[in-house]
Amino acid sequence: MTTTSDRTAEPAGATGAPEPVEATPAADVATTTAPHDVPASGAPARPAVRPTTAASGEQEPGPRVDVPALHDVLLGRWPQWRAKARERATDPTFWKDESLSMDEHRERVLEQMRLLASEPDHQTWLAFPERLGGGDSPGANLAGFEELTLADPSLQIKAGVQWGLFASAILHLGTPEQQDRLLPAAMDLSVPGAFAMTETGHGSDVASIGTTATYDPQTQEFVIHTPFRAAWKDYLGNAAVHATAATVFAQLVTGGVNYGVHCFYVPIRDPKTMEFLPGVGGEDDGLKGGLRGVDNGRLHFTQVRIPRTDLLARYGQVAPDGTYTSSIDSPGRRFFTMLGALVQGRVSLDGAAITASKVGLAIATRYGAERRQFTGASPVDEIVLLDYATHRRRLFPRIAETYAMHFAHDRLLDLFDDVFSGRSDTPESREDLETMAAALKATSTDFVLKTLQECREACGGAGFLTENRITSLRADLDVYATFEGDNTILLQLVAKRLVSDYGKALGKQVKTGQGMARFVVDQAVDKLLHRTPLRRAAQTLTDVATRSGGRLDTATQRELLSDRVATKVEEVALALRPAQKASPERAQEIFDDHQVALIDAARSHAELVRWELFTEALGKIEDAETRRVLRWVRDLYALTVIERDLAWFLLNGRLSAQRGRAVTAEIDALLRRLRPHVLDLVDAWGLGPDHLRAKIATGAEKERQDEARAYYARQRAEGTAPVSEKALRRRTA
Amino acid sequence: MTTTSDRTAEPAGATGAPEPVEATPAADVATTTAPHDVPASGAPARPAVRPTTAASGEQEPGPRVDVPALHDVLLGRWPQWRAKARERATDPTFWKDESLSMDEHRERVLEQMRLLASEPDHQTWLAFPERLGGGDSPGANLAGFEELTLADPSLQIKAGVQWGLFASAILHLGTPEQQDRLLPAAMDLSVPGAFAMTETGHGSDVASIGTTATYDPQTQEFVIHTPFRAAWKDYLGNAAVHATAATVFAQLVTGGVNYGVHCFYVPIRDPKTMEFLPGVGGEDDGLKGGLRGVDNGRLHFTQVRIPRTDLLARYGQVAPDGTYTSSIDSPGRRFFTMLGALVQGRVSLDGAAITASKVGLAIATRYGAERRQFTGASPVDEIVLLDYATHRRRLFPRIAETYAMHFAHDRLLDLFDDVFSGRSDTPESREDLETMAAALKATSTDFVLKTLQECREACGGAGFLTENRITSLRADLDVYATFEGDNTILLQLVAKRLVSDYGKALGKQVKTGQGMARFVVDQAVDKLLHRTPLRRAAQTLTDVATRSGGRLDTATQRELLSDRVATKVEEVALALRPAQKASPERAQEIFDDHQVALIDAARSHAELVRWELFTEALGKIEDAETRRVLRWVRDLYALTVIERDLAWFLLNGRLSAQRGRAVTAEIDALLRRLRPHVLDLVDAWGLGPDHLRAKIATGAEKERQDEARAYYARQRAEGTAPVSEKALRRRTA
Repeated sequence: MTTTSDRTAEPAGATGAPEPVEATPAADVATTTAPHDVPASGAPARPAVRPTTAASGEQEPGPRVDVPALHDVLLGRWPQWRAKARERATDPTFWKDESLSMDEHRERVLEQMRLLASEPDHQTWLAFPERLGGGDSPGANLAGFEELTLADPSLQIKAGVQWGLFASAILHLGTPEQQDRLLPAAMDLSVPGAFAMTETGHGSDVASIGTTATYDPQTQEFVIHTPFRAAWKDYLGNAAVHATAATVFAQLVTGGVNYGVHCFYVPIRDPKTMEFLPGVGGEDDGLKGGLRGVDNGRLHFTQVRIPRTDLLARYGQVAPDGTYTSSIDSPGRRFFTMLGALVQGRVSLDGAAITASKVGLAIATRYGAERRQFTGASPVDEIVLLDYATHRRRLFPRIAETYAMHFAHDRLLDLFDDVFSGRSDTPESREDLETMAAALKATSTDFVLKTLQECREACGGAGFLTENRITSLRADLDVYATFEGDNTILLQLVAKRLVSDYGKALGKQVKTGQGMARFVVDQAVDKLLHRTPLRRAAQTLTDVATRSGGRLDTATQRELLSDRVATKVEEVALALRPAQKASPERAQEIFDDHQVALIDAARSHAELVRWELFTEALGKIEDAETRRVLRWVRDLYALTVIERDLAWFLLNGRLSAQRGRAVTAEIDALLRRLRPHVLDLVDAWGLGPDHLRAKIATGAEKERQDEARAYYARQRAEGTAPVSEKALRRRTA
Repeated sequence: MTTTSDRTAEPAGATGAPEPVEATPAADVATTTAPHDVPASGAPARPAVRPTTAASGEQEPGPRVDVPALHDVLLGRWPQWRAKARERATDPTFWKDESLSMDEHRERVLEQMRLLASEPDHQTWLAFPERLGGGDSPGANLAGFEELTLADPSLQIKAGVQWGLFASAILHLGTPEQQDRLLPAAMDLSVPGAFAMTETGHGSDVASIGTTATYDPQTQEFVIHTPFRAAWKDYLGNAAVHATAATVFAQLVTGGVNYGVHCFYVPIRDPKTMEFLPGVGGEDDGLKGGLRGVDNGRLHFTQVRIPRTDLLARYGQVAPDGTYTSSIDSPGRRFFTMLGALVQGRVSLDGAAITASKVGLAIATRYGAERRQFTGASPVDEIVLLDYATHRRRLFPRIAETYAMHFAHDRLLDLFDDVFSGRSDTPESREDLETMAAALKATSTDFVLKTLQECREACGGAGFLTENRITSLRADLDVYATFEGDNTILLQLVAKRLVSDYGKALGKQVKTGQGMARFVVDQAVDKLLHRTPLRRAAQTLTDVATRSGGRLDTATQRELLSDRVATKVEEVALALRPAQKASPERAQEIFDDHQVALIDAARSHAELVRWELFTEALGKIEDAETRRVLRWVRDLYALTVIERDLAWFLLNGRLSAQRGRAVTAEIDALLRRLRPHVLDLVDAWGLGPDHLRAKIATGAEKERQDEARAYYARQRAEGTAPVSEKALRRRTA
């Protein structure tokens, strides 16, 4: 596995020196029209890349982004599969049709899934075994799957239920015999299936589900049963209408012992009549805030009998006489192994959230580059939205963060493919994968909602119209924040892992380059090992910034961001330590006192991971000018993260008040510097008009503005323009 | 007019001393189970009001909220009208029907409006003149109108278009003769109307609209004309289907002179055939992110002729020969006077946003008080969501902010009624009203979206289901952030007013208690007058906190919040000053450098206004225990505002690092203290099941949890519970 914290991977800089980020204090920056952007190569000083209000084509000289080359880098590993899926998303057959009723939308999406299942190259089957027609290529599969979001998020999610959850449960939790027997019908959609894990009474707390599967040695059957209303399965895609079978999670009870949650293959509907089978019942979840093409529903079971052989038995088996055996001795580890097999849902949601963020930002940025409102310096021309400071502030930092998310997701896909292809399937790499997936999913699915909302508002009333896509996309993505693991719960898992690694690090059981250290960064672990809180209190990192001449260069950014994670983790770890020896009540109080800090540490961790992987990715950019611009983007990301948590850096003496005040000015300077490149940065995502499908992102706005300007110009030329009342008064005064 | 900054209005505190907000540093608080909550009245110390995980009924002793009395206070002025409107909202006839198609929803809402128009007491007509059947009571009208949100936001907005915009334009911009002639049909809905101000090419920049109304003295007609596509009227409610007339805003041109934007009454459809009249065209805006019951559409005009007498002529008249006259000499002031007549839209959106926030918070809080997830101290019982620190953090500060918004809105309604009833209709009070409406609308419509999203996520997957209301409400409220004035533009208007007042204050032209000073608070103006930046640099407000013994008491809160506004306004005012003498290009650069700071100052101002009015409202609470709890709520609001901008307070030396660190701990302590009262605080809003209409807020969750708990208890009692694998191993080990 590659190491993410390889600091030598970052390019030394084609210009031979680190890029100057505005180092002058706020007041200076404000009055400086030509920042000293002098490459150390000795090239002559260029004027500030401050765009005029003229057409965006007339840029002043500066580095150019090689858009096609950057686009190729962003296609990532498995470019052919991603490109193919993106090509498919331009086919109107797969587009979301906003005019449909819920019922019509559900049928349309099922029909689209049938088309996917019948594609000659079977992209949808890439994750499945070659012996069954698949490609044994889990990473390639997700790379393509994520792009379904561009067509219709309902299609992504309903397809995800079928192939990513229902069929995946058979693949990962079943034996080879069960795979051979059950997978083909799941793969070719002849058995549409539901994934019956979540219950009304228990969302993310899967270990506490109430459904039971009690073994009856007399008949060699499991009896699936729902003991009370809260144990109804709920929110299950495909369950309301289309599923004829389900992979059902239940407490496995045999010989009077509960062996914990296991998964069972349970037919639920007669495929001919589509009536529920005896003992099975359910209801439709009905309308939702989005994803109306997914038929979510509830299921319950009354003493439903299935053969012993339909317990998916990879990790736990029941012999005909009722004896339970498992290759994993610890019940806890067995439970998490089974659940861990389903991590790909989280991985793919991270990808989908990033894709949707790009759509929103591409629409808003293109509109902002054309839309004019209010006159500024020119008495005639109104100003393009992107030339307003507030508008740059709304969009550019989110473009930068999306780039950071993109590069981190690429690494997550690598890690996922390493583990699930079997190339590097160790307990440690699985744990790393799960932690990284939780950290990234929980933060990107939050980010995408805020980003789409900002984009929608940045487009004004036009942003609210469905024809401009953003509100529709936001509504569909809403549930990503709480399904496949509630974001708060996921961040708590991440934090617990960090705290536990901290404990191990103190015990020096962790070698550098192994375990979480890969993501918390060696440096941070070093800090944990070699500093005591007392020593830290006396020392401030303000020196860091001073040392580098006042600029936040790469090393300073890394030190600020990694130290932040290390310090937060250390503080909460020390604070939680007394809970180990306390009474349950006291332990819970202690936890309660620090739960907010736990979540906060996990968020900081996700930001550090993204910063590291963005920085590493700069090394993959071959074109020097493109790399230069992308480094500004990386700097903007770092400063955005720091500004967001500025109070923490100040309170903990990591930044002086003077440095802290400069952060905002540095961001403003970067926003101006990036202004001429922002359309290129957005274009490099490779989203064409058939991906965006927003009327305001088609150039129509520019046409309208040009027409209006031509009208007034003609009036002035012809002398037919009415005199303004003010001008008349000046004349008659 | 009442003064909002009357410091004596705040109760000295029934307990005789200010409430102690946790003053101990974080570490102390974390281990303190009994905060020193000792009333100075000499009552014995009570234990910490830290709720157990038991049913919420089992509260430890503490002050009680008198819910009915608080509810009465919150009903505000015109309680009978508000109560009546709230009662109407429990009638299913007026509820949003989620199952309808867009077309069906539009027809249903029109039908609901006909019911409103035919109500015997004509609540809908309250704002109109008594001589026409109205009530001359603009404040009472809005108090009732806002409550329509509880029924269906589409109804609120479509009714708002009819009576609040279309008919209001006739009322406020027409002469008495025009009112008599045109209002009755608008009031009784025999003429459904559109309000044609916004154009595709110009949103909030109304002065730049392209539609022209050119006077033709030959025929004594105005010719309404749309010169290019960008000048199409757009996003107009009622325009797509139902409107037969429109109040159209256009540049009035007569005798070759453009006298600026005026409003014209223009029939647009044949009421019999509902076909567009000759020269009128348009199209449907189609589906939107929400408000699907409102038929928004576009209109354009090709040389449409209307009689001279249908220029709404209150502020500007054209004589038969084409001579223009106006009672307002300045074109700028005339324009803003005409637009100012429409401020009630913003006032009512502030009220609607607060109402919707209450609905979301009531649903999420009630669910959070019942829903259990994961076990804590008890080996049997799971923990109620509200007993998680993160969950309190998500909801309680928003409940506190909603209270602050409520009290500020009450004052806004007062001010609105004072001006529009004519009791206090001066240019100054109009300007105050407009500034306050802009500041409150721009921040509450932002707040409601974030709040509803937090509530939806706090309810997990259940929050995403339409049956639980929140996503539907959020979708409808989305556009509130950009219509009736884009929030960014509105905040900029507020900031410009503050900066202009600052200029006047420096010139000592403002007497205390007049103009903006009422809201920026006397104290802040004093600071502006008597401090220079140099002096301030040397002085830190840290003393403030120290002086009050480390606690943030009322005086400290006021000083911190008012000083923040004063400082921000002063800084940006000084920074913008050079723009006055600069070239247009340079002036725009200077503005660009400080636009973000301008918006930020306006937001801080809105927060200060709310804090002042919340504090003042404490004096209206007669019951001492209720007041005590509400003061904690006020403290929580203040600390939330301070924590949100903590970096500013630290960077500007207003809080020491030590104090800054304590803010978070103080918030956590308040959240725990408020835990036993939070259902009361939510109940006092007076929203019953027929207002909330969310299945998860009905007690169903508690029923389910109780049933599940009873099931397990019975199993344990009967000895039929399966042994857990872990227990088995302990037994066999």
